[in-house]
Amino acid sequence: MTPINRLLTIDKDLAVPVYLQIANGIVGIIKQGVLKPGMALPPSRSLSGALGIHRKTVLAAYDELLAQDWVESFERKGLYVSENLPEIKPRQMAASKAGYVYPERTAFPVREKKFQYAGTYTPVRERLVFNDGFPDTRLAPVDLLIREYRRFAHYKFTAKYLSYGPEQGSENLRTALSKFLNETRGLQVSPEQLLITKGVQMALYLTSQVLLEWGDHVIVGEPGYVGATQVLENAGARVNFVPVDEGGIVVDAVEELCRRKKIRLLYLIPHHHNPTTVTLTPARRMQLLELAMKYQFAVLEDDYDFDFQYSTSPILPLSSIDHYGNVIYVGSFCKTIAPAIRIGFMVAPANLIREATCLRRLVDRQGEQLLEEAIANLLKHGDIGRHLKKANKIYHARRDLLCSMLQDELAGKIRFTVPDGGFAVWAQYTGRTTARAVAEQARRMGLYVSTGEEYYHTPPPRPNAVRLGFASMNEKEMEEAVGILKKAIG
Amino acid sequence: MTPINRLLTIDKDLAVPVYLQIANGIVGIIKQGVLKPGMALPPSRSLSGALGIHRKTVLAAYDELLAQDWVESFERKGLYVSENLPEIKPRQMAASKAGYVYPERTAFPVREKKFQYAGTYTPVRERLVFNDGFPDTRLAPVDLLIREYRRFAHYKFTAKYLSYGPEQGSENLRTALSKFLNETRGLQVSPEQLLITKGVQMALYLTSQVLLEWGDHVIVGEPGYVGATQVLENAGARVNFVPVDEGGIVVDAVEELCRRKKIRLLYLIPHHHNPTTVTLTPARRMQLLELAMKYQFAVLEDDYDFDFQYSTSPILPLSSIDHYGNVIYVGSFCKTIAPAIRIGFMVAPANLIREATCLRRLVDRQGEQLLEEAIANLLKHGDIGRHLKKANKIYHARRDLLCSMLQDELAGKIRFTVPDGGFAVWAQYTGRTTARAVAEQARRMGLYVSTGEEYYHTPPPRPNAVRLGFASMNEKEMEEAVGILKKAIG
Repeated sequence: MTPINRLLTIDKDLAVPVYLQIANGIVGIIKQGVLKPGMALPPSRSLSGALGIHRKTVLAAYDELLAQDWVESFERKGLYVSENLPEIKPRQMAASKAGYVYPERTAFPVREKKFQYAGTYTPVRERLVFNDGFPDTRLAPVDLLIREYRRFAHYKFTAKYLSYGPEQGSENLRTALSKFLNETRGLQVSPEQLLITKGVQMALYLTSQVLLEWGDHVIVGEPGYVGATQVLENAGARVNFVPVDEGGIVVDAVEELCRRKKIRLLYLIPHHHNPTTVTLTPARRMQLLELAMKYQFAVLEDDYDFDFQYSTSPILPLSSIDHYGNVIYVGSFCKTIAPAIRIGFMVAPANLIREATCLRRLVDRQGEQLLEEAIANLLKHGDIGRHLKKANKIYHARRDLLCSMLQDELAGKIRFTVPDGGFAVWAQYTGRTTARAVAEQARRMGLYVSTGEEYYHTPPPRPNAVRLGFASMNEKEMEEAVGILKKAIG
Repeated sequence: MTPINRLLTIDKDLAVPVYLQIANGIVGIIKQGVLKPGMALPPSRSLSGALGIHRKTVLAAYDELLAQDWVESFERKGLYVSENLPEIKPRQMAASKAGYVYPERTAFPVREKKFQYAGTYTPVRERLVFNDGFPDTRLAPVDLLIREYRRFAHYKFTAKYLSYGPEQGSENLRTALSKFLNETRGLQVSPEQLLITKGVQMALYLTSQVLLEWGDHVIVGEPGYVGATQVLENAGARVNFVPVDEGGIVVDAVEELCRRKKIRLLYLIPHHHNPTTVTLTPARRMQLLELAMKYQFAVLEDDYDFDFQYSTSPILPLSSIDHYGNVIYVGSFCKTIAPAIRIGFMVAPANLIREATCLRRLVDRQGEQLLEEAIANLLKHGDIGRHLKKANKIYHARRDLLCSMLQDELAGKIRFTVPDGGFAVWAQYTGRTTARAVAEQARRMGLYVSTGEEYYHTPPPRPNAVRLGFASMNEKEMEEAVGILKKAIG
């Protein structure tokens, strides 16, 4: 039999004390069935010699094994692997070859695909990317954030902010945010009507779970943001689709549905609609709010990139003209600061905020308080406002650049309308090609562009429109990307 | 009628351009019904004079209102509030008195108390606190965290970390964490078997939602951690309770239940049980794992304070001896760094991790990547290990101090066992008093101590045991707190 010292590895640099490494190692050897119940452990003197460590360390390890009942001592004759423990089936030695031996599958059944969603994160391998419309993280004001974190080192409230805090989000942030929203979006909300979330995503999740019961009817636009549709479906909703045209979602189609079915919720992006970038017309806005009142459904208004507007001023959100409490307004700082800085918010009458806060407590208890306090300071001191001005200038120029390149280089090959704001152009290939064919060609030349299916719950047979995100490319990258796109269209 | 300039407030320091403040202000006035459809707007020259701003700014505001269809222009005669918009019911002016006018209640119905949980966060007002067992945030290694954040300012991967990332959590963190768990807890898991969550709370939520269907039977200990029971109940589970004695949960009672009902999941804290601080005996551990295998249920092992152990070495978790894939292991850094730093984890066979990751994507898309990278670095460079050693020394001393004070000052009034680790002593009042009576007396003297009900799903008629958290009090505070407690017991 292999002497057990050969099976033990000791590393004095680890956080775990050496005696414990030995004890844990021996437990492993017992579990593997190499040391069986009733077998003797080597005398402490010989093991310490073999391992080149102090005998007291081995004795401490043996005490540990005794305390944990893994071994027994018989009349001072030495230590033996316990007979009393229920027998453990020795693990096959082969299983540990790969280095990891935690089981590959659960012993109990796990229902697969209970939760559906639009594909996991897969890192893009292409050198150039027309993404879905993300900000340029190279321009993220991470220095501002770090400055705030540095302040925490000597801040008298830091110890408080590090303790458990309010589930609804930092009071300072809710106060600063309500002021910001009221100033920029014409809202008139109080901090009690705000819930701080992890991005828009969590706001959509909480709202759906709180409002919907299994089988409830909801409405979304097609094409649309499929990520939201999936959250609704996972909450048990039956999803009804209405078309989207140049004026936004077709509200007459909404009315038609309301007459036939009890609608509980309508999800929409009235401003810079994803994917089409259209804006819901004022007349349709009024019509929609009237319908919401008449048929008592919730309007979930996703205004994820309100702060990025180049041509005209942004249209104020529906929630700024909602008198009756029909509109839930959600947004985030994921575009303002960076996608990975997960601060979002939900605005709604307090009775809904209360219920959403209850669920939030169950989901993850609370947000990152330090981060929330940092963002509160950035809002309060005008840093966010100043950053937005700077960023808007850059993205405005990038939008203009992409649009003029598309006009010059791809005339007759694509059709698009210059978007008023946001981060992407909605472009339709006019020829007989499909978005998938273009994507595959482009990928070979090092450019990622969408295959065009992701914007639909049920994609058309040959999707030929894609979002061309312009915000995260500089001039040089954009020139190259448009050049490749041109070749890919052929 | 009030001249509209009196109803407009302009603040040149705001992030919002002045022309937009005017436009938004006028929209508000229209919505309030002060300016009605068909009424004329003041000429730009007179408004600019009244407001003391440049006429071009007012013209820009009017252009904005025209673009948004709020006003119409008639043959160069001036601007009039649009007749074409669907009529809006004028808001009562009185409603805006309070400063905030977003509706107080939703127009659509919201089912109340759909989600239950153990009370919201309420800030403790007492000067001294025997909390449930929290670390001292004054000792939190916030300087280490800030040091890592400062590095991000010049780090070449920062832009990447600020983009959307993997839902399962940072690869660097999962790699460093699997190494840390394998070294400290005798686990043998790979990064694929890890999901990074927001605290233990999210791990409990995801597990319950993935594994449980409405009406499924689960088992928990009583007394126990009611926060977990509520997550299970909210996932639709029927909860069965088993007693907890000095040896941990009574596994014979588990077996009894398994014979009668199809059990899907058992939740337990085998190490430093909350609230009783007992540790599950090795024999019961083996028995429990055998039952899990035989009856095919999931064991959800919550090991929230494994890293804090003073007397003997910690007993290795159940998951370190689970050969078959019955155990889901959850833990966090909320005690290691601070409660408000929301990094937790879940260890399970990959098929379960996959499903939990799907749900996580729906819930909040992903974690805080910068924070995850910072923690990964702290783990990799041994900072966490070093901090734990320091913190354990301090908490060890505080435990000893509290226990000796309790022995000296409260002999005959309370009964307790010195806990091996963790952050609290489980103390029973031996007299005829109740925990509530003591709590009320103590509160009058500026000390918070539990009323004793929070540890039970169904509290006994007169609870007389409480957790006395010792970790977040220094010597002086502790002396004072024990003095007040003594008087409060009477």
